Amino acid sequence: MTVTDKLPAPLRGIVPPMITPLSDRDTLDHAGLARLVEHILAGGVHGLFILGTTGEGPNLSYRLRCELIERVGELVAGRVPVLVGVTDTAFVESVNLTEHAADAGAAAVVLSAPYYFPAGQPELVEYIEHIAQEIPLPIFLYNMPSHTKIAFEATTLERLFELPNVVGLKDSSGNMSYFHEAKQLVDRRSGLSLLIGPEALLAEAVLMGGHGGVAGGANLAPRLFVDLYEAAVRGDRDTVLMLQAKVIKLASTVYSVGQHASAFLKGVKCALSCLGICDDAMAEPFQRFRGPQRERIERHVRELELDHVIAPSRSLLPEGT
Amino acid sequence: MTVTDKLPAPLRGIVPPMITPLSDRDTLDHAGLARLVEHILAGGVHGLFILGTTGEGPNLSYRLRCELIERVGELVAGRVPVLVGVTDTAFVESVNLTEHAADAGAAAVVLSAPYYFPAGQPELVEYIEHIAQEIPLPIFLYNMPSHTKIAFEATTLERLFELPNVVGLKDSSGNMSYFHEAKQLVDRRSGLSLLIGPEALLAEAVLMGGHGGVAGGANLAPRLFVDLYEAAVRGDRDTVLMLQAKVIKLASTVYSVGQHASAFLKGVKCALSCLGICDDAMAEPFQRFRGPQRERIERHVRELELDHVIAPSRSLLPEGT
Amino acid sequence: MTVTDKLPAPLRGIVPPMITPLSDRDTLDHAGLARLVEHILAGGVHGLFILGTTGEGPNLSYRLRCELIERVGELVAGRVPVLVGVTDTAFVESVNLTEHAADAGAAAVVLSAPYYFPAGQPELVEYIEHIAQEIPLPIFLYNMPSHTKIAFEATTLERLFELPNVVGLKDSSGNMSYFHEAKQLVDRRSGLSLLIGPEALLAEAVLMGGHGGVAGGANLAPRLFVDLYEAAVRGDRDTVLMLQAKVIKLASTVYSVGQHASAFLKGVKCALSCLGICDDAMAEPFQRFRGPQRERIERHVRELELDHVIAPSRSLLPEGT
Amino acid sequence: MTVTDKLPAPLRGIVPPMITPLSDRDTLDHAGLARLVEHILAGGVHGLFILGTTGEGPNLSYRLRCELIERVGELVAGRVPVLVGVTDTAFVESVNLTEHAADAGAAAVVLSAPYYFPAGQPELVEYIEHIAQEIPLPIFLYNMPSHTKIAFEATTLERLFELPNVVGLKDSSGNMSYFHEAKQLVDRRSGLSLLIGPEALLAEAVLMGGHGGVAGGANLAPRLFVDLYEAAVRGDRDTVLMLQAKVIKLASTVYSVGQHASAFLKGVKCALSCLGICDDAMAEPFQRFRGPQRERIERHVRELELDHVIAPSRSLLPEGT
Repeated sequence: MTVTDKLPAPLRGIVPPMITPLSDRDTLDHAGLARLVEHILAGGVHGLFILGTTGEGPNLSYRLRCELIERVGELVAGRVPVLVGVTDTAFVESVNLTEHAADAGAAAVVLSAPYYFPAGQPELVEYIEHIAQEIPLPIFLYNMPSHTKIAFEATTLERLFELPNVVGLKDSSGNMSYFHEAKQLVDRRSGLSLLIGPEALLAEAVLMGGHGGVAGGANLAPRLFVDLYEAAVRGDRDTVLMLQAKVIKLASTVYSVGQHASAFLKGVKCALSCLGICDDAMAEPFQRFRGPQRERIERHVRELELDHVIAPSRSLLPEGT
Repeated sequence: MTVTDKLPAPLRGIVPPMITPLSDRDTLDHAGLARLVEHILAGGVHGLFILGTTGEGPNLSYRLRCELIERVGELVAGRVPVLVGVTDTAFVESVNLTEHAADAGAAAVVLSAPYYFPAGQPELVEYIEHIAQEIPLPIFLYNMPSHTKIAFEATTLERLFELPNVVGLKDSSGNMSYFHEAKQLVDRRSGLSLLIGPEALLAEAVLMGGHGGVAGGANLAPRLFVDLYEAAVRGDRDTVLMLQAKVIKLASTVYSVGQHASAFLKGVKCALSCLGICDDAMAEPFQRFRGPQRERIERHVRELELDHVIAPSRSLLPEGT
Repeated sequence: MTVTDKLPAPLRGIVPPMITPLSDRDTLDHAGLARLVEHILAGGVHGLFILGTTGEGPNLSYRLRCELIERVGELVAGRVPVLVGVTDTAFVESVNLTEHAADAGAAAVVLSAPYYFPAGQPELVEYIEHIAQEIPLPIFLYNMPSHTKIAFEATTLERLFELPNVVGLKDSSGNMSYFHEAKQLVDRRSGLSLLIGPEALLAEAVLMGGHGGVAGGANLAPRLFVDLYEAAVRGDRDTVLMLQAKVIKLASTVYSVGQHASAFLKGVKCALSCLGICDDAMAEPFQRFRGPQRERIERHVRELELDHVIAPSRSLLPEGT
Repeated sequence: MTVTDKLPAPLRGIVPPMITPLSDRDTLDHAGLARLVEHILAGGVHGLFILGTTGEGPNLSYRLRCELIERVGELVAGRVPVLVGVTDTAFVESVNLTEHAADAGAAAVVLSAPYYFPAGQPELVEYIEHIAQEIPLPIFLYNMPSHTKIAFEATTLERLFELPNVVGLKDSSGNMSYFHEAKQLVDRRSGLSLLIGPEALLAEAVLMGGHGGVAGGANLAPRLFVDLYEAAVRGDRDTVLMLQAKVIKLASTVYSVGQHASAFLKGVKCALSCLGICDDAMAEPFQRFRGPQRERIERHVRELELDHVIAPSRSLLPEGT
């Protein structure tokens, strides 16, 4: 079987960046992981992305990363394509992780710029060209300048989209002007996929011609994002605006309890714990919400009726939509 | 033997951040490493810091990092304290590296903030408190906001300086106002050491009460920085200004050939190769200088008479100084 | 006549930020100004914004700013609402400019944060509250953090939207997540207007519920942006994507000849000069394109058929759309 | 009389950036101004700089700026050189202010990059070249990237130091590596002056060869900074460190009461008011400290014995130093 057997070209739809259920900093919550995978897949998603930013990938030991790759491969069992984050500061470790991912049946890897030293654009081109030759899976480039300090600039993208195993771009810059520029480049080669990171931008990204999104909130409410994606695809603006308001509501409640950049991640994990799906232990430098912060999340979960949302077969759209 | 046997309190003087001699991305240049260690130690330095930013630490495989830790331990053989960079995005990997360092006889570790997710200050405090409990060596905090995105703010330092195995701060922010603020805090507890990162700031840092510096240029010209340190300690301003001009000259020549943030690193490695000390292979995402860039470095090496400088026993000071 | 007689509530549509035609650094190109106003208005725009960023407002002498305010008032003669940028570092000068604007029949002023000292959010609230009491015209807040260093944060907007003469927000941050957050706040009070700055984001801003945009490219091709706005309003996605491609093409050609942040401004002025509409002299620190750069703009103007576009009555839409 | 009659070449010593005593946003506190000028001059300073950042220059109306220029010229009456900040976003207004300054007997102007649009370096060169031709006074370049967004890069300085009426650089970047680089350039032409902005860096700037500083704290304690300057000039390191501790103490007390970037400015003005020297009204967007914040400043003023410090003839040095 070739890689393209596993991966639609272009990949379209909702590909949630799965959080990593932990019972402590270096132990998977196995039962929670199984429940979470079923919860997300039941929402009708089009792929699953593990070990990304939302997955706390860089904060996990390599041992645990490999264990997660294998376990998710078994749990998903080919129902949707699995994408694995292999971004690393060390070239050799990215290659090692990709080999594990290939063995576990992953469909592709997701790779950003190395994130300690800020590389120049020519250095970034050469880096991706070299690693693309060494790894046995298709590559989604991952534009994440807030965390890596550098963006894939347009001329860099142009070069890298010529590489045969580069199959798309996940843009998490939050800069829609960049996204539109990237879209012009993606459109030049058949089969390339352009996915948006920030979930608040999913609707407009799809309305404006993007292929889908990597919405972190889909850990909680996968059906909400699948419905929003589908409404945008068919150009149903009333439904888009109605569901978009729910997406913004998540941001102003569940993701706004914490005070630091980790607020989103802690909020999602805590809400999943409140819903009984999985443990909310975190890898350092983060710690789970406790006391009053957890109580605020619990209240938001009730008010947003996220416990209803988790009944996976029910669409969030009003009947008859 | 306790850790304090190996580490003066405070540590004072020049502690070069050693580059890592490589023959390819995942192979040590063993012969070059041995020559480089002798070259640096012959300059009269007061310690050696491996696997820092200048050492390309985050870009090396863990296998190679462990090999380097062991080999440098053997080569130095207790002549000066060895400090090991263990900064990582994954808590568990930092602990693993520290255990290797302890086994190899290292005197201390150097630890910055985890550098993928930007932590809030309370998260950073908790992170250092937790890791300090788990690791068997004294810790130098490493303030490096250009690469980690966050600084150790003053109130954070105040808390962390109370931890018994925090023994000092290496400040590479380049912000001397911060350095002076940190100095006030360092002065409150006996034995804490305050070292400056950027070599252009070494002289004033010592004149203003700092304990020394982690000067990357000391890979090339260890005696230059030792002389500068000593002149500053004894308040010999004429010598300070004369040697400072040489330091600035290095920056405007050897470190200015490249066009990206990697210019310093590539320049130092290339110059060491021109001098016959070690190979200049680099770990991705960087590549050694080639062609015209190497020729420019060769010319600078000749013009600065760095080949004379490497005769380690000769001081750079005019006779009679 | 009250201010609301002149200004729809909410203001909707395309409100071009007019460039300021100059014949030298302190002299208006009066004939060019008259032609430019007619060119823009013939495109069917819904308002005109002078002395903004695109208008080089902060770079012009106060004498010239007052002259421009008066002359544009005469030229427009009430055909569309005129908005006047009065952002300044000096409170008193903003008030003075507003009084001139009121005398000249302007419908509203546009006001960002003072842009030399970065104010804290509570300081910004107090500043706007004070100035709102002193000036006789409705206020559009102008979010422009790239130039003012600070954004109007959500809690600040919430406070300021309660002021009776704050009538809307022009968001030029380029951050659509912010825009969506602002929209939730705008929707709470009837009559508030939310306009988007960057023209590449106009279509999605309107598709997602915004009221229109302040598109700089409308100096050149006002009908293009009016058509795009109208297509978005009626949810005609095919037309939106077709016209959006033209907008992106402008950015990758006319706005990409220069190498600095001024590239957009110089490109627009030069193209208007090539089209024979007005002179392209600029106020310092900028200088018009000369030689090869002007030739590149000339070529782009021909290739994009901007000379056809300027026939104002012709829509850019294919017939039958 | 030529300009150089008024201005030593190079200018050396302490040139306090005077705060502007106001009784409300657009009214000078004339009596306070007269007391403040005498207080500062009695400290033995080497010049006086008005309408800089500390002087709230950009926040004042042009009318008031001209009034201040004239009044300070009369009050100082040639006892020390007066430097006038004429930085502006509008070229024409900078020229107008300079003409007022020349009429009032000022010795030089201080000019940074225009601060709304971020200029590219070639644009900045051309801007300074043009303005230098139009104005009748010597120019100190003012490097202030935190407020203007751009620095005078080394190659730009190199070009501008060739202009006959550029007489020095005031560096407020806080980046001492930049300062050292600038010093190499300053040293190439006789008579150029290099002054440091941040007062915490004054001592090391002078120890490392700079000519003096523009210390904002000298509004409060002029003698402290004159003593520190003189100790650094004669290389008296013990005195330097003793006085530097007082400087740092000011920063951690008087300048740390506010929470925003305005904390320094508000603290200095409030302390001067507590000392009975002048009113502490401010120009928008700032407001004076009130209630508990003023009480904290009052306490700091007592604890630091700033009321003793203001007896101008007394040196802060222990007797016999």
